[in-house]
Amino acid sequence: MILDKYELNLEKNSANYLALSPISFIRKAAAVYPNRIATIYEEIRFTWKSVYTRSCRLASALQKVGIKKGDTVAAVLPNIPAMVELHFGPAMIGAVLNTINIRLDAEAIAFMLDHGEAKVLFVDQEFVPLIRKALSLCKAKPIIIDVEDRHISANEFLGELEYEDFLLSGEVDFTPSLPADEWEAISLNYTSGTTGNPKGVVYHHRGAAINAVNNILEWGMPRHPIYLWTLPMFHCNGWCFPWTVASAVGTNVCLRKVDVVKVFELMRKHKVTHYCGAPIVHASLINAPEELKQGVRGVSALVAGAAPPLTVIEGMDRMGFDLTHVYGLTETYGPAAGAAKHPQWMALSLEERAMKNGRQGVPYLLQEEMTVLDPETMKPVPWDGETMGEIMFRGNITMKGYLKNKQATDEAFKGGWFHSGDLAVVERDGYVKIKDRSKDIIISGGENISSLEVEDVLHRHPAVMIAAVVAKPDEKWGETPCAFIELKEGQVTNEEEIIKFCKEKLAHYKCPKYVVFGTVPKTSTGKIQKFLLRKRVK
Amino acid sequence: MILDKYELNLEKNSANYLALSPISFIRKAAAVYPNRIATIYEEIRFTWKSVYTRSCRLASALQKVGIKKGDTVAAVLPNIPAMVELHFGPAMIGAVLNTINIRLDAEAIAFMLDHGEAKVLFVDQEFVPLIRKALSLCKAKPIIIDVEDRHISANEFLGELEYEDFLLSGEVDFTPSLPADEWEAISLNYTSGTTGNPKGVVYHHRGAAINAVNNILEWGMPRHPIYLWTLPMFHCNGWCFPWTVASAVGTNVCLRKVDVVKVFELMRKHKVTHYCGAPIVHASLINAPEELKQGVRGVSALVAGAAPPLTVIEGMDRMGFDLTHVYGLTETYGPAAGAAKHPQWMALSLEERAMKNGRQGVPYLLQEEMTVLDPETMKPVPWDGETMGEIMFRGNITMKGYLKNKQATDEAFKGGWFHSGDLAVVERDGYVKIKDRSKDIIISGGENISSLEVEDVLHRHPAVMIAAVVAKPDEKWGETPCAFIELKEGQVTNEEEIIKFCKEKLAHYKCPKYVVFGTVPKTSTGKIQKFLLRKRVK
Repeated sequence: MILDKYELNLEKNSANYLALSPISFIRKAAAVYPNRIATIYEEIRFTWKSVYTRSCRLASALQKVGIKKGDTVAAVLPNIPAMVELHFGPAMIGAVLNTINIRLDAEAIAFMLDHGEAKVLFVDQEFVPLIRKALSLCKAKPIIIDVEDRHISANEFLGELEYEDFLLSGEVDFTPSLPADEWEAISLNYTSGTTGNPKGVVYHHRGAAINAVNNILEWGMPRHPIYLWTLPMFHCNGWCFPWTVASAVGTNVCLRKVDVVKVFELMRKHKVTHYCGAPIVHASLINAPEELKQGVRGVSALVAGAAPPLTVIEGMDRMGFDLTHVYGLTETYGPAAGAAKHPQWMALSLEERAMKNGRQGVPYLLQEEMTVLDPETMKPVPWDGETMGEIMFRGNITMKGYLKNKQATDEAFKGGWFHSGDLAVVERDGYVKIKDRSKDIIISGGENISSLEVEDVLHRHPAVMIAAVVAKPDEKWGETPCAFIELKEGQVTNEEEIIKFCKEKLAHYKCPKYVVFGTVPKTSTGKIQKFLLRKRVK
Repeated sequence: MILDKYELNLEKNSANYLALSPISFIRKAAAVYPNRIATIYEEIRFTWKSVYTRSCRLASALQKVGIKKGDTVAAVLPNIPAMVELHFGPAMIGAVLNTINIRLDAEAIAFMLDHGEAKVLFVDQEFVPLIRKALSLCKAKPIIIDVEDRHISANEFLGELEYEDFLLSGEVDFTPSLPADEWEAISLNYTSGTTGNPKGVVYHHRGAAINAVNNILEWGMPRHPIYLWTLPMFHCNGWCFPWTVASAVGTNVCLRKVDVVKVFELMRKHKVTHYCGAPIVHASLINAPEELKQGVRGVSALVAGAAPPLTVIEGMDRMGFDLTHVYGLTETYGPAAGAAKHPQWMALSLEERAMKNGRQGVPYLLQEEMTVLDPETMKPVPWDGETMGEIMFRGNITMKGYLKNKQATDEAFKGGWFHSGDLAVVERDGYVKIKDRSKDIIISGGENISSLEVEDVLHRHPAVMIAAVVAKPDEKWGETPCAFIELKEGQVTNEEEIIKFCKEKLAHYKCPKYVVFGTVPKTSTGKIQKFLLRKRVK
């Protein structure tokens, strides 16, 4: 190949081309704002200089026990300071952080430890019995580092090394290096597969750095945010916010468990400015007793998942919280799209505005594209708000692929796009609106029924707290909608009233034929487990 | 090489790896906010959809006249709408934009057209005589596109094609593509070399995109800023703000010439939120008659170059403007560092705060490093505020190199760092403070005297508008400081008083021995031309 004048003698060198990586962010936070508080947990405070030094020691300690580039470092931890440090230490030596969902059963954890080939495992004391069982089920023999927490009653240890002692074994003057290639893996997140084995989603340094700053750009975060950890860091690396908070030189307010009393107490005490969560987290804050909310206002909140019910939007508004709805998947580092607001929407009614804001919208600035394609032809659907297709992504905030699963990776990237599995339409303004997961769609008498559309209506019923609609096999129609409903405290209603309510607002064929009252099963991140409901209706 | 599990079957593909490029930003601005105003010039308004379409047509029109990847598209234009479009159109087909300083003489422009091998040249009518002469001096025979502007009296044309007609020759449905490689060149900026030929600094798509969003992050710009073009777009691509404004979906308020009456009028009329400029631009706003300033407040301003004099800082404060000082060079895409503020500085006196804020500080978030090294040993200087070294940069906001100048490129990148040529110290908090350009330092009786330090003192004198200090050859001392001073309107002083003023504030050997009153020569971007002063003192 002949080089043109803009290529010849204008190669990359170590002065003009460096890997994009979140490691840069913590190094700078520590260099420029060494004494700012980086992490708060109960009475514990660490400055950025301290978190940086501790992360360096962690990297060095891992190196000393033989961890190297491409090795997996697993963690079963709640949102405590060690979890923040784990988002930096392993990356500094090219190792890959695998944060494991703390609500999983031992079998699932055993699978992940084996599949990810964990070489080290950091365990919170609360989960020692669970992990002991998981280790008895798997072949992997990771080095166990117990993370002690004297704020809980559990005092069992699993291994022989405690986290603070382990840190001390690392060199205090360890100097982290950027990865040679920004495409190197930084973390591994298993998706909660409803069928088959979980898939290991691999993130890279480039994507982690880009998404970290993208969070600031999209949310308009100022420098030095006070970020409350209601979202689990084990979920899509807390949507990359450990890296975002470092880049914005903010403060991580750690929280072992979401508890409304504690949440409001921390918000008030530390002047929290930002937090993220599933709809259920926000709903529980709204439904908390008024006296808890005293003195807490103006907090910015992100909600991911399906559009939040109108009651949540109204409730947040009443509390003086600023709610932004975002959309994404584990494969896109968490949210990578949102319904970018337009000033003229302010003139709409709350309900109309909620419809606009509740959409999946448009891709984030640094995610190249999100669109709706016919998965057969890979052609875009018309912007008519009616024609359904599959949401697909392209861009730098998209996983490397699934670990040791070429088939699933190839399928996910078929045709040069990442296939989300979510069905959606494009509205006239080019904004994407989700209709359903492909597997959640209900086909009744040959007509497609979006379970989300029915749930949206159910959520507007004053007695309904949570609603989930799944397909019930039906001799005549093939499938019919069956609703599972969790009522608000003290509320009463019945099947007949619910069905009547739906018939006033929906085409009759879309209305539930059956209504079941009771607790709706949810994952640890607040997602409704429809596969369990489907089992129940059979 | 054996691939590890995080590399095998986890390659880059078109769904998960795309070039970082400002092209993405304009495409999104047009897709998400098609009807928002992108460009304002006199009575002209273009929406983002329109600027995008016009840029696409421009790309297509260039392609039709044979322009392809690696070709140079030159422009001699003030800050008018066509200049915004030129920051996108050529990039869409891999061509490279060379914006030429409109204040240069014909000889310098002829050199650039030849050296850059310009294939097309866009010319503003005001500069037709200048360019006619330049073309008579050079070998290059670019296609000439005249950019008509009925707001000026000039009505001469140089070529046969007018900009609007040229746009019409492009396809309206042209679809831009991202570069295959984000390392591809996007623009060419000649530095105003004081000795020898100008050097052509080459920027790449990756750096342009990263610096564009970096501007938002560092300045804390909200979405939809109203940006007034006081800074020339021909200077470091207006520090990359054409790309920043697109990424923030803001509005470009164009301005052919900096004129204080016009500046305040536009600020008031369009509710301008942000602008950038050399110290002289801010000083002239401060010194404008009070009645012009009515109704203009709360504007955010960036000032680059040496620390702004205290009077400028105070003056901006009085106007209710928020001034931020930044530092960089053409080779670092304009500013790539700044004195990141600390809340506790608010407790300091204005003078102390000005000293802190006026430093070159620390690298931008997305520029990896800025530090002060001994250029001989390449070792960092101690953080003592005294030991001088050379400011050096490393990171992704650093040029590819100098066009067709391997020797200068190699020198600039010697030892794996970009050498700025600026002499500085590191203060105790790790912030860099510039002392001088290496060639501006005055060596008197074996002692180094920073011309900047002397100028800082002179600027504090109430009668002084602009001060510049250069070395005057001296038989006894080798060199001694000679001050050139431009007085504020209506102010009177004399050499004796100035020297006395300096002696109260500086070591005596640092004080000017000679003072010359009169106009100080400046470049079009407001930089003082010390090489002319040095000629005068000889």
